[in-house]
Amino acid sequence: MVATIVGTGLIGGSLAISMKEKGVVNWIIGVDQREENLQKAQELKIIDEGVSSIKDAMQRSKLIILAIPVDALLQILPSVMDNAGPEHVIMDVGSTKEKILQLVAGHPNRGRFVAAHPMAGTEYSGPEAAIKNLFTQKTMVLCDVKNSDEDALEVVENMVDKLQMRLVYMNAVEHDLHTAYISHISHITSFALALTVLEKEKEQGRIFELASGGFESTVRLAKSSPDMWVPIFKHNRHNVLDVLDEHINQLQQMKQLLENEDYETFYKLIQKSNKIRKILK
Amino acid sequence: MVATIVGTGLIGGSLAISMKEKGVVNWIIGVDQREENLQKAQELKIIDEGVSSIKDAMQRSKLIILAIPVDALLQILPSVMDNAGPEHVIMDVGSTKEKILQLVAGHPNRGRFVAAHPMAGTEYSGPEAAIKNLFTQKTMVLCDVKNSDEDALEVVENMVDKLQMRLVYMNAVEHDLHTAYISHISHITSFALALTVLEKEKEQGRIFELASGGFESTVRLAKSSPDMWVPIFKHNRHNVLDVLDEHINQLQQMKQLLENEDYETFYKLIQKSNKIRKILK
Repeated sequence: MVATIVGTGLIGGSLAISMKEKGVVNWIIGVDQREENLQKAQELKIIDEGVSSIKDAMQRSKLIILAIPVDALLQILPSVMDNAGPEHVIMDVGSTKEKILQLVAGHPNRGRFVAAHPMAGTEYSGPEAAIKNLFTQKTMVLCDVKNSDEDALEVVENMVDKLQMRLVYMNAVEHDLHTAYISHISHITSFALALTVLEKEKEQGRIFELASGGFESTVRLAKSSPDMWVPIFKHNRHNVLDVLDEHINQLQQMKQLLENEDYETFYKLIQKSNKIRKILK
Repeated sequence: MVATIVGTGLIGGSLAISMKEKGVVNWIIGVDQREENLQKAQELKIIDEGVSSIKDAMQRSKLIILAIPVDALLQILPSVMDNAGPEHVIMDVGSTKEKILQLVAGHPNRGRFVAAHPMAGTEYSGPEAAIKNLFTQKTMVLCDVKNSDEDALEVVENMVDKLQMRLVYMNAVEHDLHTAYISHISHITSFALALTVLEKEKEQGRIFELASGGFESTVRLAKSSPDMWVPIFKHNRHNVLDVLDEHINQLQQMKQLLENEDYETFYKLIQKSNKIRKILK
């Protein structure tokens, strides 16, 4: 099978590496707006060839994977769908789903589209960030699959299986709510924490001398690219605002307990939060 | 050299393992309020013997390391100092320093005390959590060393050197401010994030199905023990409230930008937070 990957960065590149290795595809055409990304991806042997036109690439491909930030995705998706024939399977890997699925709803080729979101990534971006086995044992969410043609869905499910991923089906509304809670808010807190400490560093130069594993752990996501994350916050604004509100409330509650020196209630809150142990390994 | 370690948990236990391995000491007496910890530490060969009285242990030890939560430390430190002779070196490993150093200020044996804080740990506790090499290549902060006797300081510096730790000198006021920013706030955000998501799980059972590395990274510190952390927040209350205030402000600013759909400023904020790359490896 020949696949086209639009966007040869962290996710697209890592998918390309795994799909080739696991024998899902035998030829990968890369498409990327950034010429340097395309060159780099070829140098790194992530893709077999690079072309500039998605339309040309589609003519020779069965599977088309759109691995670009969600705002760019919303822009190109209509024309990709217009060009899709019954031989094509179009799959995205976007981190938000409602807007994307609204956009393709009712499109005559809607059945050729499979909405996917691999729950894996790192704080790095670009083809150099692409790594082998990024997706192994991770979760792939497929959204609103009832609107995809059975054979198109099978192509994606087969890929997920060969990549040794865990499959989860969900509707787009649930997906966007859940990712706000277990992914998007983590990035916001990291960005905010980095800003808080960087601000303080201006007066207190030596502040990072003491930084250790705990700090790094909570702040590493703050290295993430705004090109990817601003569109996510934009297209999941409603849910992100909800969780952000709740998170600020939790912090304000803790602040108030400290102000009132109510350490007993603070202790109980921490005990409650310790229940996260049952979730994390 | 014979050492007594009071508190045979994560930090005390890991220190015991490393000090023995690196030849800093050849016999370790463990003291722990919890009989089961003492037994476990002996089973795991972290300590050579366990005794219940600090006074007895001190009579046979040169180095006494106090590795217990800061509130318990403040309680026992006066009597430990009273029992100290010129042959003793008393060292703590507490995460806050101002209150501890205020307590010993002016004590006739003040010179025998060295205030230390190893910037290393994990979210786990107890003797089972003790690990080899926890401190290798990590930072050891020594506070207000001008008030320690030269020979006592040398014993600790020699240990730090043999443990292959990086040495940083700081006064207690700076220490408590800096740790609020690069350690204590990370724990508060993790506790709050865990609570936010655990609350949501009650309505949305499947929410953790999508959790991946990013979520785990920002929330893992929420597994930390309230026995250790409530006393830290209590004894560094002033600084923790300051940084918590600033962090809440940063989050509120982001919330407002999202509400106003000012994605351009949001983008710039993320770019600014990306400067954390220069700090983290």
